[in-house]
Amino acid sequence: MQFYKDGFRGGSPDVKQAAPGRRNRGVNEPLPEKVDVLIAGTGPAGLCLAAQLAQFPDIETMIVERMPTNIIKGKADGINTRTMEMFQAFGFADKVKRETYWVNQTNFWMPDPVNPQHIKRVGRVQDVADDSSEMPHILINQARLHELFLEVMKNSASRLEPDYSWEIVSLTVDPTTDDHPVTVTLKDASGVNWWATRTVRANYVVGCDGAHSAVRKAIGGELHGDAAHQAWGVMDILANTDFPDVRQKCLISSASEGNVLILPREGGYVFRMYVELDKLKDGEKAASRKFTQDDMIAAANRIIKPYSIDVKEVVWWSIYDIGHSLTDKFDDVPEGSDRAPRVFTAGDACHTHSPKAGQGMNVSMQDTFNLGWKLVHVLQGRADPSLLRSYSKERLTEAKRLVETDHEWSRIMSAPTTQAERDGTEEPRIIRQFKANLEFTGGTAVKYDTSTLFAPPTHQALAQGEEIGRRFHSAPVVRLSDAKQMQLGHAAEADARWRIYAFAGQADSSNLGSAIHKLADWLETDAKSPVVKHTRKGEDIDAVIDVRAVFQQTFDQLAYEHMPSLFKPRTGQLGLQDHEKIFCVDHKGAGDIYDMRGIDREKGCLIVVRPDQYIANVLPLDGFDELSAFFAGVLR
Amino acid sequence: MQFYKDGFRGGSPDVKQAAPGRRNRGVNEPLPEKVDVLIAGTGPAGLCLAAQLAQFPDIETMIVERMPTNIIKGKADGINTRTMEMFQAFGFADKVKRETYWVNQTNFWMPDPVNPQHIKRVGRVQDVADDSSEMPHILINQARLHELFLEVMKNSASRLEPDYSWEIVSLTVDPTTDDHPVTVTLKDASGVNWWATRTVRANYVVGCDGAHSAVRKAIGGELHGDAAHQAWGVMDILANTDFPDVRQKCLISSASEGNVLILPREGGYVFRMYVELDKLKDGEKAASRKFTQDDMIAAANRIIKPYSIDVKEVVWWSIYDIGHSLTDKFDDVPEGSDRAPRVFTAGDACHTHSPKAGQGMNVSMQDTFNLGWKLVHVLQGRADPSLLRSYSKERLTEAKRLVETDHEWSRIMSAPTTQAERDGTEEPRIIRQFKANLEFTGGTAVKYDTSTLFAPPTHQALAQGEEIGRRFHSAPVVRLSDAKQMQLGHAAEADARWRIYAFAGQADSSNLGSAIHKLADWLETDAKSPVVKHTRKGEDIDAVIDVRAVFQQTFDQLAYEHMPSLFKPRTGQLGLQDHEKIFCVDHKGAGDIYDMRGIDREKGCLIVVRPDQYIANVLPLDGFDELSAFFAGVLR
Ligand SMILES: Cc1cc2nc3c(=O)[nH]c(=O)nc-3n(C[C@H](O)[C@H](O)[C@H](O)COP(=O)(O)OP(=O)(O)OC[C@H]3O[C@@H](n4cnc5c(N)ncnc54)[C@H](O)[C@@H]3O)c2cc1C
Ligand SMILES: Cc1cc2nc3c(=O)[nH]c(=O)nc-3n(C[C@H](O)[C@H](O)[C@H](O)COP(=O)(O)OP(=O)(O)OC[C@H]3O[C@@H](n4cnc5c(N)ncnc54)[C@H](O)[C@@H]3O)c2cc1C
Repeated sequence: MQFYKDGFRGGSPDVKQAAPGRRNRGVNEPLPEKVDVLIAGTGPAGLCLAAQLAQFPDIETMIVERMPTNIIKGKADGINTRTMEMFQAFGFADKVKRETYWVNQTNFWMPDPVNPQHIKRVGRVQDVADDSSEMPHILINQARLHELFLEVMKNSASRLEPDYSWEIVSLTVDPTTDDHPVTVTLKDASGVNWWATRTVRANYVVGCDGAHSAVRKAIGGELHGDAAHQAWGVMDILANTDFPDVRQKCLISSASEGNVLILPREGGYVFRMYVELDKLKDGEKAASRKFTQDDMIAAANRIIKPYSIDVKEVVWWSIYDIGHSLTDKFDDVPEGSDRAPRVFTAGDACHTHSPKAGQGMNVSMQDTFNLGWKLVHVLQGRADPSLLRSYSKERLTEAKRLVETDHEWSRIMSAPTTQAERDGTEEPRIIRQFKANLEFTGGTAVKYDTSTLFAPPTHQALAQGEEIGRRFHSAPVVRLSDAKQMQLGHAAEADARWRIYAFAGQADSSNLGSAIHKLADWLETDAKSPVVKHTRKGEDIDAVIDVRAVFQQTFDQLAYEHMPSLFKPRTGQLGLQDHEKIFCVDHKGAGDIYDMRGIDREKGCLIVVRPDQYIANVLPLDGFDELSAFFAGVLR
Repeated sequence: MQFYKDGFRGGSPDVKQAAPGRRNRGVNEPLPEKVDVLIAGTGPAGLCLAAQLAQFPDIETMIVERMPTNIIKGKADGINTRTMEMFQAFGFADKVKRETYWVNQTNFWMPDPVNPQHIKRVGRVQDVADDSSEMPHILINQARLHELFLEVMKNSASRLEPDYSWEIVSLTVDPTTDDHPVTVTLKDASGVNWWATRTVRANYVVGCDGAHSAVRKAIGGELHGDAAHQAWGVMDILANTDFPDVRQKCLISSASEGNVLILPREGGYVFRMYVELDKLKDGEKAASRKFTQDDMIAAANRIIKPYSIDVKEVVWWSIYDIGHSLTDKFDDVPEGSDRAPRVFTAGDACHTHSPKAGQGMNVSMQDTFNLGWKLVHVLQGRADPSLLRSYSKERLTEAKRLVETDHEWSRIMSAPTTQAERDGTEEPRIIRQFKANLEFTGGTAVKYDTSTLFAPPTHQALAQGEEIGRRFHSAPVVRLSDAKQMQLGHAAEADARWRIYAFAGQADSSNLGSAIHKLADWLETDAKSPVVKHTRKGEDIDAVIDVRAVFQQTFDQLAYEHMPSLFKPRTGQLGLQDHEKIFCVDHKGAGDIYDMRGIDREKGCLIVVRPDQYIANVLPLDGFDELSAFFAGVLR
């Protein structure tokens, strides 16, 4: 991490210098009249967006929540590798890694063919395939995750905090103006203000207000989908058990008592159980069945025989019967219209999922990570408002894929086992499907379609392991200036900047006249260079597009003094040299990034990565015109 | 990390539940009349001790500091790998790793033989040898390090904070009583209390009050040693330069302008320079020379020709002329007496070092990490007060070794280069010596002598890479219960507990009757077992001695259900099973701990590790009597 660029400041480097002119918050302070972005809801979707926007004090962001404070327990807990990669960009992945449970193995238990009343382990699957991500798959209390985002907000230059106890009741959009066209009505939800209502005008409103979203309803959205026909009980417990795999994720199917899912959790003691309860009738809600926590514990004990569970404390429990559902679009643009959107929905507000695949919370955050940088670009005048239309398009396609896979998985989880599976002569379908799904559940299978934001794969052969439309897949490198081993992907922060990684060809050590040197000089000075075109006067040269280089030599074979100035720019208020833009292959056995990601050794290549870490383009090192053209389609 | 053992608690797991009955602090509150331990000074030595004692709310600890607040910049910055291993036990190594500069390479520059007025790189040395520690060598602002310790204190059950603006002026020890025999006189140093004096009585006083220690003087200690004959200027700067190695640690010797040491620092921009200034006359102090920061910058620019440095901001600078010095003993026990000590000195208060080897701050913390657990044992009545005599003995021997090596290093650093070195026909002595010193500067060369606390090396052959008297050298393992890859050494926390690692022999998978199983059963139940003898009624079985097992099989070859109950104890208020005591070899290529540490594969062994991470004993798995006898010599 880089800091002190504008001069020394003591204390934690995560606490940024506060920007001036922030509004005061608190019960005695008025709400603002106008904001740039109003976010509804402090769930994972809302907080991820707020943490992103908080980095830009020039953008006035407000996040409202009808509850009086953050939750302290419960709800979702699964964070897949892709989401962890995003946390890295927000700066708290290390913290999460330290304090959470890592899902290393998933184990499968089924009725013992010899004694079907007892369960037996039938398989183990390594949960995160080697080199599928540099990050672990982890489990954490959702409330704690909220805190980590809240910290990022609070430590940002804008010192953003939620306005709690305000509920969005309605909103209207005035299509005739561009001056804060959305009027939102908020109602005091605590009673401290005698349930008063207030209005706030916003340029953009993002409804991250969960499955019963008021924002979605206000723009005429509806959730379509399956009602859940199955009630699941979920409980986080502190308990003793003789079940030997209690600290591994387990899918357990009993012969006749139903299924249990075990998810060990942070801290070494607590774990979560999803217990399959009764099937529901059409239109019936689980709540009406009045299941108790004792019902759930009893069911779990029946399912895991011959083992048993002795519960010492029930931390949290809930009956969960949300199925798969989806709205038609994630913004307020009427069918057939080509105006830019003003209101968006994200997360559970526009799609819900069964908890079994553990995707809900992840997808919610990925939604707003997709939207965040687009809002920043448009509000900063760097892109045309039409950019915002891509949000609904990109995320809706993904949500549909998710619902399909989720469907398939649910079907398999509840299908009866075959005789061959029970005999052990055939690998159970559930295990096969689980393996096939790993990339999907890891969140790394997401692939966006070709658009102005994703170039066609004309030059994909230059970087076979870095596919356009998919997330940039990190790999080990060594930083040239200080010989530090690191992950190339960790150069990217959640700062709404684009990245261009220039991979040098074999012979290229940045000697004068080499492809890398020519590229750097062109990018730095040519009138057609996207860096020159899209960076404003007075801004740092890497303010919008951050270009970095990777070489095939090891650090001791390269001369730092010969590197082009674009890769050692002088930036910030003091004009200090940045020494963190040049990388080379790892010399300590961590792997060669060119081999690992199928980069053309001979020719090298350019990889253009969006602010949300998705690969937008792969080009030859001299693809100057194509590079210009690509950015001209996105930025102003 | 483990938490929720006594029930769920939301929020950051680093914030422990506060113990009741803590005193209020602040200018309007009285100082306590009596405390168990009074620590003087909030430098690294004092804070490391306070952070350790803060974990024990039953021990009343007070830490006073004459300054009104923590420093914000300056002083030392080097943290060696050994100290990082200790930080791991305090829980903040990950934070430090994330935000600091890592010293990966040290480079050497000397006069270019072709043009001696210019410097030239003559060598590079990997700064931390492979597998010498799992930790990096890092550089950090000392003030920030203080903050990390202050956080640990504040988050502990005792919520310990320093009493700032109180200066120790004198103390007396009453040898006739055991009831708080040390009377300390404190003086208000801020003037808020009109420079009033107060007395506080303590059971133990630890002078961590730096080179001019009032505590040392009060017990008649004197620093003997070399005056520094050399003034060094030190400055932390934000600067641009064409010197290509500015982000690597460099030792630079010019032909006739002196030497510079470059230490890159946290955040990617700031770096430290030590600049050799004029030689001093006998008895002359550097301060009298009135060097300015401009003198230093000018000297640096002369030394690093043909390169130059353009300074944008001087963050901190100082003229530093502290040499090597040492007191005769680190406690108040008179020569020839056999009473237990009541007053100690630690860190700069009893030994100072030149900054060139970067040891001062590290050794200061290692002093009090050595003392901390001993104070805890004695104050909790677990050990005889005579245990405290080992502190001065162990640390004085180490300090002497350090002063010697330091001497040697200084001599070599200022010796003129030979012709062969300048020609490049011979590796410069400074590089050879630097390499030879690496283990020493890493802090991992420390080896304590045989004593009641360190058994003779009778069974050392069973674990050749884990030498008695040296720090336990961590290695990769996989935790059995959840298949997590981790470092075995990270099982140890700064909690004043002993660890016994039982390494199983080849065939042993903890089947009934196996050596591991017998050992575990004996330890858990036999009247002669140190676990049984030294653990009090009502305490958790691992309250004093924490026993863990390591197996040669991989996790999928072992049956958790067959493991002895000692390794799955039920502890804490809820009696919850602990699943984190059993390890096996790594199955993912990180290395086999048996091979890496020379553990006897056939027979296995026991390694007994002190609370400060030093290996106290190596024994065969059936060395029951020897194990009993060892602990009987230490614990009650
Ligand atoms: C009771 C419960 C249990 C769950 N259990 C699981 C589980 O076991 N496993 C799993 O994977 N997922 C579970 N989920 C789902 C998971 O928590 C969601 O997928 C995830 O939280 C979605 O994040 P989000 O930000 O889109 O919405 P949410 O987390 O639902 O956040 C929406 C926020 O908006 C607030 N809000 C709502 N309406 C308004 C309004 N009009 N004005 C202002 N604020 C408003 C809400 O108070 C809430 O804080 C559960 C959800 C619930 C509600
Ligand atoms: C100005 C300066 C520059 C230094 N620069 C370097 C460097 O460049 N490189 C390097 O390796 N090392 C340097 N050092 C040394 C390094 O900081 C020490 O080795 C290290 O801090 C030792 O830690 P300590 O806790 O023993 O003592 P210190 O860090 O010195 O802490 C002692 C504390 O005790 C307080 N104190 C003193 N007397 C009293 C009293 N009577 N009552 C109450 N409180 C008292 C002091 O205010 C201070 O906070 C420097 C030291 C100083 C003073």
